[in-house]
Amino acid sequence: MSGSIYGKLLKVSTWGESHGAAVGAVIDGCPAGLAISEEYIQKYLDRRKPGQSEYSTKRAESDTVKILSGVFEGKTTGTPISLMVENTSHHSADYSNIKDVFRPGHADYTFNAKYGFRDYRGGGRSSGRETIGRVAAGAVAMSILEEYGVEIYAYVSQIGDISIDRDRFDKGEILKNPLYMPDHTAYVAASDYLDKLIQNKDSSGAMVECIVTGMPAGIGEPVFDKLDARLAYAIMSIGAVKAVEIGDGFDVVKATGSKNNDEFYMENGEVKKKTNHSGGILGGMSDGSDIILRAAFKPTPSIFRKQKTVTTDGRDTEIEIKGRHDPIIAPRAVVVVEAMTALTIADLILVNKSSLT
Amino acid sequence: MSGSIYGKLLKVSTWGESHGAAVGAVIDGCPAGLAISEEYIQKYLDRRKPGQSEYSTKRAESDTVKILSGVFEGKTTGTPISLMVENTSHHSADYSNIKDVFRPGHADYTFNAKYGFRDYRGGGRSSGRETIGRVAAGAVAMSILEEYGVEIYAYVSQIGDISIDRDRFDKGEILKNPLYMPDHTAYVAASDYLDKLIQNKDSSGAMVECIVTGMPAGIGEPVFDKLDARLAYAIMSIGAVKAVEIGDGFDVVKATGSKNNDEFYMENGEVKKKTNHSGGILGGMSDGSDIILRAAFKPTPSIFRKQKTVTTDGRDTEIEIKGRHDPIIAPRAVVVVEAMTALTIADLILVNKSSLT
Amino acid sequence: MSGSIYGKLLKVSTWGESHGAAVGAVIDGCPAGLAISEEYIQKYLDRRKPGQSEYSTKRAESDTVKILSGVFEGKTTGTPISLMVENTSHHSADYSNIKDVFRPGHADYTFNAKYGFRDYRGGGRSSGRETIGRVAAGAVAMSILEEYGVEIYAYVSQIGDISIDRDRFDKGEILKNPLYMPDHTAYVAASDYLDKLIQNKDSSGAMVECIVTGMPAGIGEPVFDKLDARLAYAIMSIGAVKAVEIGDGFDVVKATGSKNNDEFYMENGEVKKKTNHSGGILGGMSDGSDIILRAAFKPTPSIFRKQKTVTTDGRDTEIEIKGRHDPIIAPRAVVVVEAMTALTIADLILVNKSSLT
Amino acid sequence: MSGSIYGKLLKVSTWGESHGAAVGAVIDGCPAGLAISEEYIQKYLDRRKPGQSEYSTKRAESDTVKILSGVFEGKTTGTPISLMVENTSHHSADYSNIKDVFRPGHADYTFNAKYGFRDYRGGGRSSGRETIGRVAAGAVAMSILEEYGVEIYAYVSQIGDISIDRDRFDKGEILKNPLYMPDHTAYVAASDYLDKLIQNKDSSGAMVECIVTGMPAGIGEPVFDKLDARLAYAIMSIGAVKAVEIGDGFDVVKATGSKNNDEFYMENGEVKKKTNHSGGILGGMSDGSDIILRAAFKPTPSIFRKQKTVTTDGRDTEIEIKGRHDPIIAPRAVVVVEAMTALTIADLILVNKSSLT
Repeated sequence: MSGSIYGKLLKVSTWGESHGAAVGAVIDGCPAGLAISEEYIQKYLDRRKPGQSEYSTKRAESDTVKILSGVFEGKTTGTPISLMVENTSHHSADYSNIKDVFRPGHADYTFNAKYGFRDYRGGGRSSGRETIGRVAAGAVAMSILEEYGVEIYAYVSQIGDISIDRDRFDKGEILKNPLYMPDHTAYVAASDYLDKLIQNKDSSGAMVECIVTGMPAGIGEPVFDKLDARLAYAIMSIGAVKAVEIGDGFDVVKATGSKNNDEFYMENGEVKKKTNHSGGILGGMSDGSDIILRAAFKPTPSIFRKQKTVTTDGRDTEIEIKGRHDPIIAPRAVVVVEAMTALTIADLILVNKSSLT
Repeated sequence: MSGSIYGKLLKVSTWGESHGAAVGAVIDGCPAGLAISEEYIQKYLDRRKPGQSEYSTKRAESDTVKILSGVFEGKTTGTPISLMVENTSHHSADYSNIKDVFRPGHADYTFNAKYGFRDYRGGGRSSGRETIGRVAAGAVAMSILEEYGVEIYAYVSQIGDISIDRDRFDKGEILKNPLYMPDHTAYVAASDYLDKLIQNKDSSGAMVECIVTGMPAGIGEPVFDKLDARLAYAIMSIGAVKAVEIGDGFDVVKATGSKNNDEFYMENGEVKKKTNHSGGILGGMSDGSDIILRAAFKPTPSIFRKQKTVTTDGRDTEIEIKGRHDPIIAPRAVVVVEAMTALTIADLILVNKSSLT
Repeated sequence: MSGSIYGKLLKVSTWGESHGAAVGAVIDGCPAGLAISEEYIQKYLDRRKPGQSEYSTKRAESDTVKILSGVFEGKTTGTPISLMVENTSHHSADYSNIKDVFRPGHADYTFNAKYGFRDYRGGGRSSGRETIGRVAAGAVAMSILEEYGVEIYAYVSQIGDISIDRDRFDKGEILKNPLYMPDHTAYVAASDYLDKLIQNKDSSGAMVECIVTGMPAGIGEPVFDKLDARLAYAIMSIGAVKAVEIGDGFDVVKATGSKNNDEFYMENGEVKKKTNHSGGILGGMSDGSDIILRAAFKPTPSIFRKQKTVTTDGRDTEIEIKGRHDPIIAPRAVVVVEAMTALTIADLILVNKSSLT
Repeated sequence: MSGSIYGKLLKVSTWGESHGAAVGAVIDGCPAGLAISEEYIQKYLDRRKPGQSEYSTKRAESDTVKILSGVFEGKTTGTPISLMVENTSHHSADYSNIKDVFRPGHADYTFNAKYGFRDYRGGGRSSGRETIGRVAAGAVAMSILEEYGVEIYAYVSQIGDISIDRDRFDKGEILKNPLYMPDHTAYVAASDYLDKLIQNKDSSGAMVECIVTGMPAGIGEPVFDKLDARLAYAIMSIGAVKAVEIGDGFDVVKATGSKNNDEFYMENGEVKKKTNHSGGILGGMSDGSDIILRAAFKPTPSIFRKQKTVTTDGRDTEIEIKGRHDPIIAPRAVVVVEAMTALTIADLILVNKSSLT
């Protein structure tokens, strides 16, 4: 029944339900001597905080993080870092309409199948609030990566049929629009698309793309703990993700070897690749190029239309979901993708230090 | 540096290089009392054995498995099962042309970057022969799954632009053609396509699709050890896989919630879904429908054209690869996908037994 | 650097420093449906709470536990249980006399050697308050064990030269005296001994004995994860423990096989043992008899005498420790031994459920 | 059911039964670039090989190790090292007298209780031959430790009532007598004692002591993965060990703080301890002094006297064990204690490398 701990040496244990007292994470295995503050972590949390735009739930949460252990005089001590965010807006409203019904597209049925019952308030452990622990822990991982010159940034690259135009890619734009798209024109179009869906009581899927720069070569382990395998594990564990790809991803199906192979060449005494179809990973280890990964997020399952479903005691019924729900999951998940990527890479960098040299 | 052990309770430790004495796997955590024989495991290994068609290397290996421990009088004893396949065709030919050069698309460079040197004979640990341990262990997992009525089968669903036609889907066809495609017409077309690529000294990517039937609901753990997360981890760890998707996968990007949600209904006292966009997994736990996953395999990087690259001591050069290489990876990897799926699901079924009820 | 997570399926992650905001534990892998309350956990915590007798520090802490997640309507949900105890009495007094000095017998020097610096306030992570997380988590494990009819109790069996008399053994006496001894006469003698040591500004070692009744046979895994190996791991991880023994323990050195072997016999259709030299474990698995283990606790290293030592910057010096310190560690550690025993056995019982039958 | 894998980063997976085809180990996580040969490993195996004296079984096994993977041109490659020893003397003699009976002091009953049946030939997985994998893997760990200047040696320090005299301690004597005692006079006395026991169809317990020199300070993790906790885990997992102690061990029960604390002083710019009651470990981390640990081995349970016991189908009976059995376990286990100590320390040294500095 265990499954809320992630990592090989840098281990994160997250906990908490949507409508419990608090949510949090404990990070075991963080090196000593890193500068960490609540402000630093808060910056990441603020990017997934609700209520920041029309595309995000109006739940009023400040999501303020507290560091409860593992940091002394502003530096990590090498012992577990306990992070907590209190749930302040969990006035257990009226759950009578979902308590005894399985919402389509949600984990209600599978939780019941597994455990015999569930904490039905706001999705319980399967709520998006579960990702707060991931993001807080991811911030700690980011501070490890800074020591190695590794940077990570993600953004929404597609919503419905609307993709960003690579020629208009503007990294600076990402944090300027509520959909976290690096192309203002695409953002405007996506925004129109979402407005129509909202009117239609519907929701949209989206693609999140994540780039890692400054990667040293040789990170990741051959065979099972390949860097791409660990990334796929980490990213697919984010609720609503249905697909993960590295580099050219699914396009390799149509590719030929002569097109897909990245040729090597020397530049200033360093091995470089002319192209990056591999997405920065060869044989499960980083090849020194940027890592490129993409995650497909399904549409928010909570839509305000009437849907057919069944009750917990086995009768056919209909449900009409109410309350606060985002019409799209991906924008607030951008920082979650960054966090899981950071946790994975920081972990494998620490593992890689166990070489003799 | 550790990364060759997979699983939470059902742990597989694989070992071996392409041109070492042998390759193998040790399975720790297999329940006692299962009927297992070398013949049973051999059937799976024979499907990945080389030399069976024009699309597979001519390396003459019988890949005969030996059970060295953990089975007594035909039954598993509950103690580690050690499986070994000797390498018989590893006459260390002439490796002078790859010893000091990084082959594009291979792990030569990243192994050197990580370890300072590498076993260059036939790719060493990054060779496809590494998957023998996976397949042998996967056969043991299959025998666990038989106890629970779970069945797994995979096949090639796309090669280049040629996809199988769902209306012509014929499960019985899969083992009848060397490309393991469930559609004879698609197989013929793909076969032509590959013949042209071989003439062109090129290779092709492909898609493998895997179906799991008979799944009980509730398998998989919330949060990090979601069933889909563990499957993505397992499948992406197979060499040459660049993308993994569950259910509708990447198509969810374009979907809306009203289309993507699977409505529930009752049938004979059981909860059923009208559609299966979820691919059998909701909130990281099996929902009782068939599990559907797909993996994208890149084209074989070993192509017989001249390619630009660099030497291990940092000079630009050209390489022309010789020897025995498949023009497509996916067909022989079909059984590897099945094996990794089996190991993952059997593991999580065992973990799930730790409930009180 | 990771090392604060214990368990195979029932995983406990503890966190917190003596003078941080709080201490706590997260339990991942607890089965769903168990009745758990703060009151239930509090009873265990109260037994290690300071200030309850002359042999325990006067630090005024209520050590009140809060359940932050994983319990819904009084029952475990199967998701992580987060437990927290706030530190209320950590007015950062004056640490100038220990900040730059390594206290003999403490972990000051080794923390500095490992991490380059340390949280010197009250011992930081190496404080006895670290065991609060263990005891709180152990209470949850106890409630799992109740489902299986397993009971655990521990007590102080020896202090200095004063051992309990087996003929006077009275289980009911244990909770009646502040030294948790099951023999009132021995308690009185030990009490006198401790009073003299206190006058002498000295401290005493002691033995804790722990009994597990109701054990089913076959719990524990052959080879590395033997039940006794996991118990030794768990018990030796408690600060101040320097030795662990099972059954006859060190006495086996002088024993002969004919004396040490426990003969089997049948009673009411069950396999029984005439003696229990094995302490309930054979070949690393429980044999159905009571488990007997003992742990030797060293004397409290904080004594109020002047001691020679060195400074953090490498000069010889003297130290005279002040403040609140128990003259003996073992009595308050009795419940910690119970907790670690419970966590170990509950974990291995859950692992054992992964058999086919 | 899993329990045959040991280690955090340096993971050893052992396999094999007494009368199966072979026994072995797979080591995952060994750094690349170490010189390793079959000769190097064989030296360790030869010390546990049977048939070398009157106190060891006459089973004729050469116990010749083969390296099957992970070593290329004499150096470790960073990938799994597979080691195998074939069982050559397993002519499945006549097991009719133990097949259906539980031998007292053995794991027969507990194996049956756990798995429903057992491989009864020579003890199956619970045979002493299981330690071959430990010793072979331990040799690899020793070669890691050599890089750090760490040395490990163990010996028998007590048999029955006969202890070594510390004043006569002679390290050079250890390998000169078949009881591996560092005191020739004690060896002669112990030898007489054992001869009498053999005549009496009886067996003896013994103590093994192990010393680790050259330890850097700061190895081991606070809280659960303390160096002493991991050592206790590793050593108690050796069959027949019933107690483990570090430094003064059980004597701390009678000690006072003023006697037990080791005072620090400076010498040539290094922190030293005047005494070593701690056995080289403070707060779970190495303190730079020698590590001292002791393990109590029970008497061989296979004695040639008639013993009362029960049958697998639940009837009272008598058994008279025949065959080849050592009258004392400890001498051949000396190298097993060294191996488990080496694996533990090498593992924690590698884990410790994940610090930032």
